Amino acid sequence: MSDVRVAPVVTTGPIAGSSKVYAGDSRVPFRRVHLTTGEHLDLYDTSGPYTDDTAVIDLEAGLPRRPVVTDRGTQLQRARRGEITAEMAFIAEREGVPAELVRDEVARGRAVIPANHRHPEAEPMIIGKAFAVKVNANIGNSAVSSSIAEEVDKMVWATRWGADTIMDLSTGRDIHTTREWILRNSPVPVGTVPIYQALEKTDGDPTKLTWELYRDTVIEQCEQGVDYMTVHAGVLLRHIPLTVDRVTGIVSRGGSIMAAWCLAHHQESFLYTHFEELCDILARYDVTFSLGDGLRPGSIADANDAAQFAELRTLGELTTIAKSHGVQVMIEGPGHVPMHKIVENVRLEEEWCDEAPFYTLGPLATDIAPAYDHITSAIGAAMIAQAGTAMLCYVTPKEHLGLPNRKDVKDGVIAYKIAAHAADLAKGHPRAQLRDDALSRARFEFRWEDQFNLSLDPDTARAYHDETLPAAPAKTAHFCSMCGPKFCSMRISHEVRDTYQNQVYEQGMADKAREFAEHGNRVYLPVVTP
Amino acid sequence: MSDVRVAPVVTTGPIAGSSKVYAGDSRVPFRRVHLTTGEHLDLYDTSGPYTDDTAVIDLEAGLPRRPVVTDRGTQLQRARRGEITAEMAFIAEREGVPAELVRDEVARGRAVIPANHRHPEAEPMIIGKAFAVKVNANIGNSAVSSSIAEEVDKMVWATRWGADTIMDLSTGRDIHTTREWILRNSPVPVGTVPIYQALEKTDGDPTKLTWELYRDTVIEQCEQGVDYMTVHAGVLLRHIPLTVDRVTGIVSRGGSIMAAWCLAHHQESFLYTHFEELCDILARYDVTFSLGDGLRPGSIADANDAAQFAELRTLGELTTIAKSHGVQVMIEGPGHVPMHKIVENVRLEEEWCDEAPFYTLGPLATDIAPAYDHITSAIGAAMIAQAGTAMLCYVTPKEHLGLPNRKDVKDGVIAYKIAAHAADLAKGHPRAQLRDDALSRARFEFRWEDQFNLSLDPDTARAYHDETLPAAPAKTAHFCSMCGPKFCSMRISHEVRDTYQNQVYEQGMADKAREFAEHGNRVYLPVVTP
Repeated sequence: MSDVRVAPVVTTGPIAGSSKVYAGDSRVPFRRVHLTTGEHLDLYDTSGPYTDDTAVIDLEAGLPRRPVVTDRGTQLQRARRGEITAEMAFIAEREGVPAELVRDEVARGRAVIPANHRHPEAEPMIIGKAFAVKVNANIGNSAVSSSIAEEVDKMVWATRWGADTIMDLSTGRDIHTTREWILRNSPVPVGTVPIYQALEKTDGDPTKLTWELYRDTVIEQCEQGVDYMTVHAGVLLRHIPLTVDRVTGIVSRGGSIMAAWCLAHHQESFLYTHFEELCDILARYDVTFSLGDGLRPGSIADANDAAQFAELRTLGELTTIAKSHGVQVMIEGPGHVPMHKIVENVRLEEEWCDEAPFYTLGPLATDIAPAYDHITSAIGAAMIAQAGTAMLCYVTPKEHLGLPNRKDVKDGVIAYKIAAHAADLAKGHPRAQLRDDALSRARFEFRWEDQFNLSLDPDTARAYHDETLPAAPAKTAHFCSMCGPKFCSMRISHEVRDTYQNQVYEQGMADKAREFAEHGNRVYLPVVTP
Repeated sequence: MSDVRVAPVVTTGPIAGSSKVYAGDSRVPFRRVHLTTGEHLDLYDTSGPYTDDTAVIDLEAGLPRRPVVTDRGTQLQRARRGEITAEMAFIAEREGVPAELVRDEVARGRAVIPANHRHPEAEPMIIGKAFAVKVNANIGNSAVSSSIAEEVDKMVWATRWGADTIMDLSTGRDIHTTREWILRNSPVPVGTVPIYQALEKTDGDPTKLTWELYRDTVIEQCEQGVDYMTVHAGVLLRHIPLTVDRVTGIVSRGGSIMAAWCLAHHQESFLYTHFEELCDILARYDVTFSLGDGLRPGSIADANDAAQFAELRTLGELTTIAKSHGVQVMIEGPGHVPMHKIVENVRLEEEWCDEAPFYTLGPLATDIAPAYDHITSAIGAAMIAQAGTAMLCYVTPKEHLGLPNRKDVKDGVIAYKIAAHAADLAKGHPRAQLRDDALSRARFEFRWEDQFNLSLDPDTARAYHDETLPAAPAKTAHFCSMCGPKFCSMRISHEVRDTYQNQVYEQGMADKAREFAEHGNRVYLPVVTP
């Protein structure tokens, strides 16, 4: 890989208190957290070789590649034939579920395995409501800001904190090269929105886009190894009038580009009219469709409106077509939605799109907090994931304000890991509560280091504790600076428990003594029956 | 006020882009946001005179005091008699609802107006499910950290960003003096947990607590002007065994203190046995009960368990007693609760506690993110408020790790303003969506300054935008650094709208021309009927 002005430098080494282990025949990576009790807990691990102390990282060469079967069709086609692929076996071990469940959900189209044959660097993962809720992190430079090196660093950084997939949304310069660096070094599936690169080829004029130019861009990206592609094929000419009286019009880049094209040419979208050709291309590589919500609401006022739902119905039609071509499909969702309108989004998506995995951006539960939209949207994300969304696209604090930097990427990922995990708990995912319980036990037993290390972000948890009690003994002390030693409820609670148990014990002894006296102080010999 | 080692310095002056206005006969304060269009939007304002450019702030003297009627009982008693008090009239103007609604909700016990006769510095506000969801910010020093000056600063800072009430949870040194400084300078109601101060008087030994010592502490605080008091009177001797097998035992400070006392003395809690005397004291000042959830779950594992609900039933009994004495009551709620168990908490609280306002701490929807518990809990808070919680007690990023500093206080308040506002939207509060719509319109029209100024935190929104596009022209530019000029969906969306409207116009003209031709090119003269 060339053309990079500054060589990327990425963060490596294990997350504090943990080490990389590989489990099962598929050698599935886990983050093993070592507890001070001598126990350990193995956690789902998206970070790839970067957190493996023994791995040699060579960004120029890219990550190691797993063997890929390329001549038997897509994961969907193979699942329909009853096959448990190597990817499915890997995923079953990773999720802690039977391989048959993985296969059946993929065959049903209720889950997807985004795994382009040309991206063997990625570790297989699954997106579907029967599995752990996933998180996507958007990265990518714009014409105004950032560089290739920064974006590669952000990719590694995002997966370190738990991003399950990455979308490279680069616009501006160096789109192809940026993507090459990201794909060759990404341990997770990579998604793109090919219309962005196509638009660069027309120098930013949407009216000059053509099917042929778009198709060639898609093929270029399929060849390169992109695992899933956002295609805004549901934005139709007849939907445009429905957006005119909106408060925020069309807020999807791809949606606005296609609307501009349709209107300029007075023709139906070439993404829609050529959709079957697109299916044939994606099927060849096993690239997954992420059918874009080009008309998603960009404000509370526009949520669940006619434009949004008209497009969703069209996405349902396209889902049927894609599946008939053996292509895996997920459906993108909003956006900005007040809490009482969230569940309706999942209900209609499942009904109209045959339960294809839902992949939502937030949604933001209010518009009034720019600079905190990782929080406004984590609220909506947790709720929509509880209702059935399979993957959440993160929103960073910079949303609406600027291109996210490294800190924003981490803040966005952590906020979304929280939302996803909260949903896993609410849905009763078999492994989810183990981590909460382990952390809470550590908290109650004042094992501060274990509490930090079991958390989503041990570095920040430790740093916050250090702010007021930096000395090493504080890490085993039975209080913190919040309440001080006298007012620690948990310390008192231990004393209450001990007192109670002593009292019960003493009462028990007293009862036994009385019983013994009542029986004439004779030792009771049980009658043994044969 | 004396005894302060370092004189407090607080933040004053209006929030960016706004000024203080006073509305109606009650001169109710609002934050008026001035838009670049010449319009304005008035927002609920908790910040008191500190954001009034014309106010003279003298922390030594305290805030100005409103006239208070002290000889006609509590707001509850007066509401029952059909009276619309000055406080109710003020609140009606503040909330934009009829004064009769305020009175009726208070009379029904479904809302409370925490307004100790001795705290005339506070601006009246209401806590009840029929009104805007409120946010409380906990402040207060501990034996390990902080000072009076810091806590006064945090109080002003928290109300600047929207805290509707403050709880002074000080332990350690100077409890009385700290509270005096806070009360005399707080524009919002102040709550406390009197057992903390009582415990200081026994030098931290819970077994040495007595009813008399506690009673005298309560009277001291009533006299000083505390508006509501957390009383953990629902922690009974028989509940303690229910906590022994919990993952995190008893995590409420007050709860653990009372459990320790009950067990040490083998007696029922003096808070429970002397509850009616307590009611008589609180009624005299119109101090509101906040019946504490001493047995709230401190982990996902312990949520909605027997201990928690046994206490809630007891709080229901106590609610009836308090109301029969004319004392206003709200009920505190958890804690740590997974999303699927949240609504049950509201349902049972309303059923067992006669719909007394619910006041919940979060709840945290997962345990795994110390350092981000403002987010884990904002998720739970938004959901529980949507279900009917009237006031949310904030959680800061430092929860479980240390005493919050100034930045943590702001982060906690903003996260909770988001949760509260999201719930107001979901509940259809009449004024809530006006702000979202105004901000979204500003966003769509690239009025960046208006977008910042309408947000919960204009300073941070502006700073984030400045990070990548600091130049003044960028504040009116039709793009930002996230997408750059070519890829701004909203810019394209405007073009789409214009193109569409031109086409409709042209089509309309063409239709008209055809029609004209069809009618023989005659000008149509309407028939005027007399």
